Amino acid sequence: MANRLMFEKPLGMRDTLPFFYNQKRKARQALSQTIESWGYQFLDTPMLEYLDTVGEASAIDETQLFKLLDQQGHTLVLRPDLTAPIARVAASQLKEQGYPVRLSYDGPVFRAQQIEGGKPAQFEQVGVEYIGENSIYADAEVIALQVESLKASGLEQFQLTIGHIGYVRGLLTEIFGDDEETSEMFLRYLFRKNYVGFRKALQEVDLSETDKKRLTQLLSLRGEENVLSKAEDITTNGACHQAIGELKQLRDLLEVYGVSQYVSFDLNLISHMHYYTGILFEGYAPHLGSLLCNGGRYDQLLPSFQSNASATGFAIRLDRLVEALSQEEDGEEHVLVLYNDDSFQKGLQKAQSARANGQQVALQHKGHLEENSQMEARYTWVYDVTTGGGE
Amino acid sequence: MANRLMFEKPLGMRDTLPFFYNQKRKARQALSQTIESWGYQFLDTPMLEYLDTVGEASAIDETQLFKLLDQQGHTLVLRPDLTAPIARVAASQLKEQGYPVRLSYDGPVFRAQQIEGGKPAQFEQVGVEYIGENSIYADAEVIALQVESLKASGLEQFQLTIGHIGYVRGLLTEIFGDDEETSEMFLRYLFRKNYVGFRKALQEVDLSETDKKRLTQLLSLRGEENVLSKAEDITTNGACHQAIGELKQLRDLLEVYGVSQYVSFDLNLISHMHYYTGILFEGYAPHLGSLLCNGGRYDQLLPSFQSNASATGFAIRLDRLVEALSQEEDGEEHVLVLYNDDSFQKGLQKAQSARANGQQVALQHKGHLEENSQMEARYTWVYDVTTGGGE
Repeated sequence: MANRLMFEKPLGMRDTLPFFYNQKRKARQALSQTIESWGYQFLDTPMLEYLDTVGEASAIDETQLFKLLDQQGHTLVLRPDLTAPIARVAASQLKEQGYPVRLSYDGPVFRAQQIEGGKPAQFEQVGVEYIGENSIYADAEVIALQVESLKASGLEQFQLTIGHIGYVRGLLTEIFGDDEETSEMFLRYLFRKNYVGFRKALQEVDLSETDKKRLTQLLSLRGEENVLSKAEDITTNGACHQAIGELKQLRDLLEVYGVSQYVSFDLNLISHMHYYTGILFEGYAPHLGSLLCNGGRYDQLLPSFQSNASATGFAIRLDRLVEALSQEEDGEEHVLVLYNDDSFQKGLQKAQSARANGQQVALQHKGHLEENSQMEARYTWVYDVTTGGGE
Repeated sequence: MANRLMFEKPLGMRDTLPFFYNQKRKARQALSQTIESWGYQFLDTPMLEYLDTVGEASAIDETQLFKLLDQQGHTLVLRPDLTAPIARVAASQLKEQGYPVRLSYDGPVFRAQQIEGGKPAQFEQVGVEYIGENSIYADAEVIALQVESLKASGLEQFQLTIGHIGYVRGLLTEIFGDDEETSEMFLRYLFRKNYVGFRKALQEVDLSETDKKRLTQLLSLRGEENVLSKAEDITTNGACHQAIGELKQLRDLLEVYGVSQYVSFDLNLISHMHYYTGILFEGYAPHLGSLLCNGGRYDQLLPSFQSNASATGFAIRLDRLVEALSQEEDGEEHVLVLYNDDSFQKGLQKAQSARANGQQVALQHKGHLEENSQMEARYTWVYDVTTGGGE
């Protein structure tokens, strides 16, 4: 390989240098501690899974999967998320515990990049899965925990937007009946947040003025306080009214949890074309150009693993959380102790007592520092025991 | 995929269930804390690297690499170790700091398995790299830190065996001259710890009785206190005497570090056929059938990244450390609070106050427990706020 390529990394792969490593660890620890205090158990699954099992069950598009062949000729994938592997574990090894189970995870996931777009192909997710209970209490717990864990990480400004796939699908079915193709088209505009395209398609489709008006109204069913009542008013559809009923119950529970100021509703929120089956949500922080976290109810995943368990959960992008936190350098004091051949023991004693005080201490032979070394400049305190003095 | 394969994982891939996850985390935290207190900075590198760069530079045999093609047609590998990627970073992004640099890591590495032999194909390593200093002080620091971090993890019984590749190669060169093939053959017997094969080959090779005796003596140069003087006695070779001089200096420094009782010397220790260039070591714990940790000086790796920096380091197998620790269940108190539709607020208050006391609390709607749920049995304390009582 040419010299200029010697230091190259594969597309979308990044090094995590010490400063960012420490920031990530600090945020991860705060999240984990909160998640565990809510009774969730952490577990981990392998980076590699079979394409035919977890790969197929995953919500991630196949074009984004890193694939490889094992020596037996099976196709493996680098896990694109942790929800599908955890569903595999919950439906097998943990099944005998009886549902519900509260599980959590923290680890890297992989999404292949087609072209250099500055997107990472490997990033870390911290998340929870509440498996085996179909109740609004479970949805509310996951959303409240999403809020509390973000707060615990030190994030002050953020907003969760909550929707319900049942409402959108109910309204589209009411209007388009068994013309699923047109329903899917409008759903796709919402998924891509392409509201201009949605409005344009609405002009071209053969519909009564009332229905066109209702679909236009759908676009405005977000943000405002009375969005749930307005959503109720534009349809008499049973599925839609059930969805609104669930969202109202959710709103009341989140009020009791004391997290209402962090949430708003958006009835045209579609985070994924096929994955979610009920309440779903996305989280944003100011000045962060992309999604911070998301989650929702997914009742069709566990059936891929022969279980009828319903489930809900969330995932936080740890890299983006750290970006949103934009923490300062930690207050850690870094100490350098310099010695020479005659003063190793003295230097070691100095280092040991500083370490016992909780300081981070490098013990360094002065004669083995590179001439151009900027080592001393990197430390808060430098003790040179060869001169008997300190600095 | 057939139903019976639905829960299968690729060869050598394992799930880490909550109990083992917690044990690993506890050990990892103890190791990290000690390593950081010695002034080492943690960093991380991607799971995927180019075969042509890090893959080629790695000490791991190519048959053990997981390979895949990216969408540009380059061959990628799942990192088989972290030493080569960290050398890449040290020789590029961190080079301007000036050497030495003290770096550390903690993460999964991958080794493809040919057949099911019960070996993991993915496991976690915690390690350090002391880069840019060729001194016995650096070797001693890394070995002393290896001892202190194992002690900090709670491991009481373990032993490090220390060797020097320079001594073995020096003796073989003295005896076989430029017959490198025969030298390599004897080196390989030592590498494979095949002492029967070594002795048998010794019978068949054309050598003076003196040389045969010296090679037989090499096999006994371990364990005993006076092994360094005995090693010195059987050769006048300059390279061998330099190696013994280094080991004596190391022994004196480890005495000052106060870790001598954990180390012994073994002059025929060969951890790798080509990787190490000086002092090297392996660590074992009782009842653990395999290597717990190893390390040593590797001065030929950084040159693969256009740097003449010499380096030493160690790596601990976290899974094996946890096995050796065989910890008990943590003392954590797990609390379950049961509520119903009428008592959610009361349950939440109970849960919040227990969480504020540092307890791990699951808040659970009683009506949504599965009939066969063994949930209550899994908790230290169960509070049922629907009845007003506790248990």
